[in-house]
Amino acid sequence: MDRTLPNLDLLFNPRRVALIGASGTPGKWGFFVFLNILKGNYQGTIFPINARAKEVLGFPCFSKIEDIPGSVDLAIIATPAETVSGLIEACGAKGIPNLIVITSDFSETGPEGAALERQVVDQARRLGIRLVGPNTMGLFSSQTSFHALMPPIEPLKGPVSMFSQSGNIGTQILAWGVEAGLGFEKFVSSGNEGDLTCVDYLRYFAQDEPTRIILAYLEGVDPDSDFLPAAREASRKKPVVVFKGGRTQAGTRAAASHSGALAGSYRIYQGVFRQAGLIEASTTQEIMDCTKALTVYPIPRGNRVAILTRGGGWGVITTDACEEAGLLVPPLPAEIIHKLDKILPRYWSRNNPVDMAAVITAEPFMECLEILAQWKGVDAVIALGGRASIPGRVSDKPRVHEQLKAQEGLLKQIAAYYQESHHKVMNFTGSLIKKTGKPIISVTMGSQDFHKESMEVYGLASYPTPERAVRVLRMMVDYGNFLNAQEED
Amino acid sequence: MDRTLPNLDLLFNPRRVALIGASGTPGKWGFFVFLNILKGNYQGTIFPINARAKEVLGFPCFSKIEDIPGSVDLAIIATPAETVSGLIEACGAKGIPNLIVITSDFSETGPEGAALERQVVDQARRLGIRLVGPNTMGLFSSQTSFHALMPPIEPLKGPVSMFSQSGNIGTQILAWGVEAGLGFEKFVSSGNEGDLTCVDYLRYFAQDEPTRIILAYLEGVDPDSDFLPAAREASRKKPVVVFKGGRTQAGTRAAASHSGALAGSYRIYQGVFRQAGLIEASTTQEIMDCTKALTVYPIPRGNRVAILTRGGGWGVITTDACEEAGLLVPPLPAEIIHKLDKILPRYWSRNNPVDMAAVITAEPFMECLEILAQWKGVDAVIALGGRASIPGRVSDKPRVHEQLKAQEGLLKQIAAYYQESHHKVMNFTGSLIKKTGKPIISVTMGSQDFHKESMEVYGLASYPTPERAVRVLRMMVDYGNFLNAQEED
Repeated sequence: MDRTLPNLDLLFNPRRVALIGASGTPGKWGFFVFLNILKGNYQGTIFPINARAKEVLGFPCFSKIEDIPGSVDLAIIATPAETVSGLIEACGAKGIPNLIVITSDFSETGPEGAALERQVVDQARRLGIRLVGPNTMGLFSSQTSFHALMPPIEPLKGPVSMFSQSGNIGTQILAWGVEAGLGFEKFVSSGNEGDLTCVDYLRYFAQDEPTRIILAYLEGVDPDSDFLPAAREASRKKPVVVFKGGRTQAGTRAAASHSGALAGSYRIYQGVFRQAGLIEASTTQEIMDCTKALTVYPIPRGNRVAILTRGGGWGVITTDACEEAGLLVPPLPAEIIHKLDKILPRYWSRNNPVDMAAVITAEPFMECLEILAQWKGVDAVIALGGRASIPGRVSDKPRVHEQLKAQEGLLKQIAAYYQESHHKVMNFTGSLIKKTGKPIISVTMGSQDFHKESMEVYGLASYPTPERAVRVLRMMVDYGNFLNAQEED
Repeated sequence: MDRTLPNLDLLFNPRRVALIGASGTPGKWGFFVFLNILKGNYQGTIFPINARAKEVLGFPCFSKIEDIPGSVDLAIIATPAETVSGLIEACGAKGIPNLIVITSDFSETGPEGAALERQVVDQARRLGIRLVGPNTMGLFSSQTSFHALMPPIEPLKGPVSMFSQSGNIGTQILAWGVEAGLGFEKFVSSGNEGDLTCVDYLRYFAQDEPTRIILAYLEGVDPDSDFLPAAREASRKKPVVVFKGGRTQAGTRAAASHSGALAGSYRIYQGVFRQAGLIEASTTQEIMDCTKALTVYPIPRGNRVAILTRGGGWGVITTDACEEAGLLVPPLPAEIIHKLDKILPRYWSRNNPVDMAAVITAEPFMECLEILAQWKGVDAVIALGGRASIPGRVSDKPRVHEQLKAQEGLLKQIAAYYQESHHKVMNFTGSLIKKTGKPIISVTMGSQDFHKESMEVYGLASYPTPERAVRVLRMMVDYGNFLNAQEED
């Protein structure tokens, strides 16, 4: 089953693309794909093909693939299943090397569909065509701004490449990325994997230079494939985050009926993931949380954590979460206590977590953060800012409006002061990470937009709760342990 | 230790309040408390007291408590620790029945502070004063719009009452509530619990009519107190969600140094929580998720779940999460399959989860939802909408702008159609919950504001990931089992 690595460069970054079944009718597969390619500002040339229309969404279109002048790098098929075989023949005649078959009603619907799928895949292979799908939600690539996607999502650009055995989960992860400030380099919904499989995408992403992190949603992998060696090789080069759907018997049954995949025993998969050094997310939320962290933080060299907190309760919860996750929260040595004594009020706890207690200004927080980050006894820091937003405006409630209105200047000053403090702390945190090579994970209890801002403005992954930060750190520590073990080999 | 239930009505809904240490200087404790009371549009009368100022934030103020004309229901002390004893004496002389001591530097800082705390508490008790704190971040009550809080948070009003042994965690939960659309009836940061303890607040909230749900952050409970019987009695009347800080040895040490509480063995606490029917949240995120659900959904009568999904992958993940949480996803009986056959395309999976596959309109979704909700074989439904937002505008990217601009009308139509579909589905879901008495939990992958809208516009708790919905359902099922066992007693 071992095949040489397919070159998927042209598939992911085509210059000339035909969309067969381009449509101006909402609800048709070829409508949203065309719209998304247009809205995504594709840098190549798109040729809409529709047998019955001269124009689609205001763009002139061709009635068949043969009519397109010159070569085509990729054809997308978005017409009913019974038309696919004939179209593949035409694509072969035109010398098109890559195909994305959006069309469903193949192996996912039963034996009849499976037979049709085998037939079209064999046909494509005979003609030297590589095929994505069938039953795929499409593909995205940032280099050419190519949004060949069914759902109306405009992913952010960034260092993550993903393949997903579920189109809706994959595209939803892209959509979450928009909200989280997490950007993607390449994405493919692998569909039924009639031809190109998850192993092909994994191997391709592993050697793809702009891909710095790989993300995978898996339901079932062919046990005869070389997934394990491919995964291990990929993990040695870059982090691979994986989520497994179909972990229980009932889940496996559900998977079989939607992607046609045999999900197999979850325990075997977990063993494979561990051996290969894959970073397994246990929830969909963890997929996002962990991947975000991997784009910005160095991998920790061990599992020892310092905790800096603006509130005692948060320190308690974070410590619990660390201990429960097998991360150590070591006591402070005399030398560190001595340094912190100079900054904190006399009654501070002399404990890790370091509680800033009533000190709410930025400077002492940064000084403490630096002492902890530089401390040789820890590999990572969790910094709990607990920043509550300070509204700079006075509400217009009738009873107090007039008198408070006079204070608006003062309130604005306070809001600006907190904003500026936050800005200082975030920039300083970024510089400390560079200086120490340790991840410093911020837990800041702001809204979703606030965490997006952390990524986009400061290049820091921040989380709304300490437990999520701890879980991310645990996953990174596991990956660090894998890398360390590789070095020792 | 059993005391008669203190009447805390006047503490939580005072008509006339003195703030000792009211200040116009940002950074002082008495600044933010005063500002928050003013901004919160308090319905009673507030008397600022400051020994050295004639006016604070534009309001005339008194130099001492004795100068206030007429009676005072509650005094808030926000001045340094050494002044507290003298102020309590003055409050006693004035006949003030309730005191909130914001001031810190008591038992949380060591034996010296503990001695001072015992002294002032004894003094207050001798004078017949009930005391919140010391070292509290204050109190909130929706009835009189009373925001006696240190941090600048304006909680939403609603059915949840909370006491918290950590001020920063309690107030952060209030802030998260603003973002989640979760409203509060009463809140108290219990501080060091020198006088009034968590047991007092628990018993008070249990019989407080407008409180429909109780929320508690606990670090340590006096083992000689009647916490267990009070908790069991409360749980029989209304759901009590609890989160325990200090679950590990290291966490316990951290708790001891910030609230002075002895956290004790977590296993013993877990036993008590179970016996008392408390709903234990294992993460801070679960606190919010579960409490939100309890404000809007009926308690399920059992653990059998139907899953309706717009995407196969989501069905798989939700099924896994249910099975792993001990919730059953029973197969569809012939009668239900027969009903669904009339709505879904011929190749649908005939399985629970019910995958809508390519059907994306609202009506069939609602028809399927009704069939599943009415199915006697399940106690709850999880509905995965997977709504991707459809942007109704055309971006102004240069290459495609002109031609796409002409399609803007069509795009707006599509966006409006999805918006209207969503509106229909949410309203219909609400009516189905009323009709069937079963929780129908929406998983809709929108942004944070979208979930807030679910609560505020539709009265439905929705979640961004299936795992979070499943976990909430599990917690509700456990509480339902507790209630069932009580009935059988």
